[in-house]
Amino acid sequence: MDYGLLISKVERTLGGRKLTQQDVLYESLRRAILDGDIRHGSRLLATRALAEQLRIARNSVLYAYERLTDEGFITASRHGSIVNRVSGSGAATSATNPAGQAAQNRLSRRVRNLPRERTDPDDPTPFRPGVPALDEFPLAQWRASMERAWRAVEPGDLGYGNNAGHPALRRSIADYVRVSRGVRCTPEQVFITAGTQASLDLCACMLADPGDSVWVEDPGYHGAKAAFQAAGLQRVPIPVDAAGIAPTQDHWDRTPPRLLYITPSHQYPLGSVLSLERRWSIIENAVARGAWIIEDDYDSELRHSGPPLPSIQGLAADAPVIYLGTFSKTMFPALRMGFMVVPAHLVGEVDEALSEIVRQGRVAEQIALADFIDSGKYARHLRRMRRLYQQRRAALVAAIERYMGELVTISSDGGGMHLTMRLDAPLRDRDVSAATRKHGLHIAALSRFCQHPATDAARYNGFMLGYAGIAPEQADEWVARLAAVIRALLDGDGTRK
Amino acid sequence: MDYGLLISKVERTLGGRKLTQQDVLYESLRRAILDGDIRHGSRLLATRALAEQLRIARNSVLYAYERLTDEGFITASRHGSIVNRVSGSGAATSATNPAGQAAQNRLSRRVRNLPRERTDPDDPTPFRPGVPALDEFPLAQWRASMERAWRAVEPGDLGYGNNAGHPALRRSIADYVRVSRGVRCTPEQVFITAGTQASLDLCACMLADPGDSVWVEDPGYHGAKAAFQAAGLQRVPIPVDAAGIAPTQDHWDRTPPRLLYITPSHQYPLGSVLSLERRWSIIENAVARGAWIIEDDYDSELRHSGPPLPSIQGLAADAPVIYLGTFSKTMFPALRMGFMVVPAHLVGEVDEALSEIVRQGRVAEQIALADFIDSGKYARHLRRMRRLYQQRRAALVAAIERYMGELVTISSDGGGMHLTMRLDAPLRDRDVSAATRKHGLHIAALSRFCQHPATDAARYNGFMLGYAGIAPEQADEWVARLAAVIRALLDGDGTRK
Repeated sequence: MDYGLLISKVERTLGGRKLTQQDVLYESLRRAILDGDIRHGSRLLATRALAEQLRIARNSVLYAYERLTDEGFITASRHGSIVNRVSGSGAATSATNPAGQAAQNRLSRRVRNLPRERTDPDDPTPFRPGVPALDEFPLAQWRASMERAWRAVEPGDLGYGNNAGHPALRRSIADYVRVSRGVRCTPEQVFITAGTQASLDLCACMLADPGDSVWVEDPGYHGAKAAFQAAGLQRVPIPVDAAGIAPTQDHWDRTPPRLLYITPSHQYPLGSVLSLERRWSIIENAVARGAWIIEDDYDSELRHSGPPLPSIQGLAADAPVIYLGTFSKTMFPALRMGFMVVPAHLVGEVDEALSEIVRQGRVAEQIALADFIDSGKYARHLRRMRRLYQQRRAALVAAIERYMGELVTISSDGGGMHLTMRLDAPLRDRDVSAATRKHGLHIAALSRFCQHPATDAARYNGFMLGYAGIAPEQADEWVARLAAVIRALLDGDGTRK
Repeated sequence: MDYGLLISKVERTLGGRKLTQQDVLYESLRRAILDGDIRHGSRLLATRALAEQLRIARNSVLYAYERLTDEGFITASRHGSIVNRVSGSGAATSATNPAGQAAQNRLSRRVRNLPRERTDPDDPTPFRPGVPALDEFPLAQWRASMERAWRAVEPGDLGYGNNAGHPALRRSIADYVRVSRGVRCTPEQVFITAGTQASLDLCACMLADPGDSVWVEDPGYHGAKAAFQAAGLQRVPIPVDAAGIAPTQDHWDRTPPRLLYITPSHQYPLGSVLSLERRWSIIENAVARGAWIIEDDYDSELRHSGPPLPSIQGLAADAPVIYLGTFSKTMFPALRMGFMVVPAHLVGEVDEALSEIVRQGRVAEQIALADFIDSGKYARHLRRMRRLYQQRRAALVAAIERYMGELVTISSDGGGMHLTMRLDAPLRDRDVSAATRKHGLHIAALSRFCQHPATDAARYNGFMLGYAGIAPEQADEWVARLAAVIRALLDGDGTRK
């Protein structure tokens, strides 16, 4: 056994870390025993002999041997330090054979069957949806808010904190959504989460059991579908039209939901606004059937012109609605901060459930965000972003009309950070989408947001284009390149319908 | 209709916010229509008349009416502005009656049946377990790390970021756990999470389907039980003894698990260390049955004397183990940062699954933590805390021996932030626990960590006491008061066995 070799092998893998000699020796011996390089039953060199051979202090060797003894790797006997049998027998040996176990140790069905349709938000495409204009975020102001918040933090704030979030932030959010979104709530009804994805996980778990049915808009938001799938729920796709989600009486009678997930103020991805009439109809039917409504109001603050329709939550104070908001679009995604507004009579139960299944904290971030809202910086930033996105949308629309107006029809839409357009050319949206990805210009195919992309391809043959990241002066260039990709496809390479 | 009264009512609820007159008027009218104070079919006062009556600009009234028209609350006609029927009919009316719907709109069964056993980590008791000595955290150093990190953040860092976490932090953690915990991994195997509770949620979802069985230690960690319950899994309690979790062959044969949750380095709550022999047996059996092992190494870094046993993950490189670590105990809970180490051959699948079901971000915090680890501040803090907790444990043990030595037997235990002790007096631990809560000295009953508290009460009649927050000079006082509470119970108020 060449101990020097063993050690140099381990030293390489630990590269750069300042370890004591005794730690390196211990680690080297441990791995050698585990890997079978030192056989069980064999005897380690005596401590003095090994110390001399390696030119290290004998105490270091004693330490390493003691530790290996403590941990059951070797046994000290009159005959010296004998290596124990620790590398397992039979089945355990197959643990080192990933191929052999791959058949059994798989991920869960719910995860293997996840709908794979998410657009990568960090895809380096100018048209990526869902990510705000990060360059335009007032980073210096936010840094200052964070520094102020950290200075205010005391040791007692470093614990788990309130299950529902920091009281100051809950109050700021309640004030804000009451006025801007017509949400009827007290601060006690506001529960802080790590963003909409976390809110959806919590709603799915709190409001439905495995096997329960959840209505989702079709086409609809992939993140919600993934959350419901992960929670073991059955998704029922409900069609969407120009007035939002459009369930028929048949849907209500034959596949009544336990949970409805809707984006009434700006349907994702089509952009339609749920009509007041449908809002009432959904509330009435949900109440009659004991169903829950999850109202995802994800970018209502970014409506470009005029105020948006008030929230469903605000229409009927005690309706079975959980209202979801997020700061990922209005501030920035990396903040990981969102919230749920729950019905007043459920506050106690929800608080108790959350105390078991989530852990809070992040007090500095919550104080900073409350300060950002209360000081008016948030509202000022939103006003600026609304104007900015309005201009960017207009520039993108003009460029599309100019370079590819005859190929597509742009949907009218009140705001947000993306637009949708129908493809009028004889191509399939997913073929175009795949081609654009190769050119670093990826645009998402509308059909991929559908439950059955193949059969819905005719109905939703089009695209979703984010414009938050496209400065007006860049729009022409990007769209011209996009148009070139589409025309190349049209000019024939076998992808025609 | 007294418009002035309506408005003053709304103004009160908006108290303190700077709203324009037109917003207040809009909001007042909207609520009045929704609440039925203004009946459907009725006609609003003409804009000019209302402006005069309220002494506000006519433009403000025009704005409010236009917005109400846009949103479908009123219809402009030749006869004036007529209020639409928007307050719903039939079923919707019952939406304003929480009592009427309470029977149907309940939380899910999985949440209603959650095991309610969590000790409130912010319970103002000196003996609270699970929360480190927050006063001793080097807050100024951490503030400096955060400020540096925020200065390094660029707009591009504000997006969703890498699903798995920031590469710098993954590397720091991989280096750290390789050396200190014998975990075999590359940075690619490390996935950053929002703490152990989030890791458990992800493991439950990724590794098991609703109805699958999960083995939990009994007594065991409530947070894990809650996560598995929320994920729809069936819990199978497995007894624990002085050498850790002790499944019998019968357990393996009759109730084979899909998932095993274990705390091998410091069993929660008893503190026993899983023997090397049992570690191998568990790996062998899990491999043979295609089961997953979740190794929660929650406070292994805080072992007081000598190094802990290396991780199970490190025993067999390709074993089906997910290793969980957290910074809640070694840094502070509010940080909300933990990690999972997954087997090398699963990295791609896990990464893909996480891209659908979680959202990352929090780049500044991750950079700051990587910096804290790499600069040696983390290791220095840990060394200090180990000594501190060792002293605090010794002081608490001495105080217990002094004031109530004959009432309890303290378990030997290698470290962490809490100790357990058996109650030798003829009382039930939960009665004592309830009594201590009344005195602001709450100590958790061991039986409450058991699957069947009533039947296990004899076997686990004792307490779990956190000492992280008790300075040595305070130990006597707190324990003397605790002893007084127990003696008062013994002196008879009907709670004897």
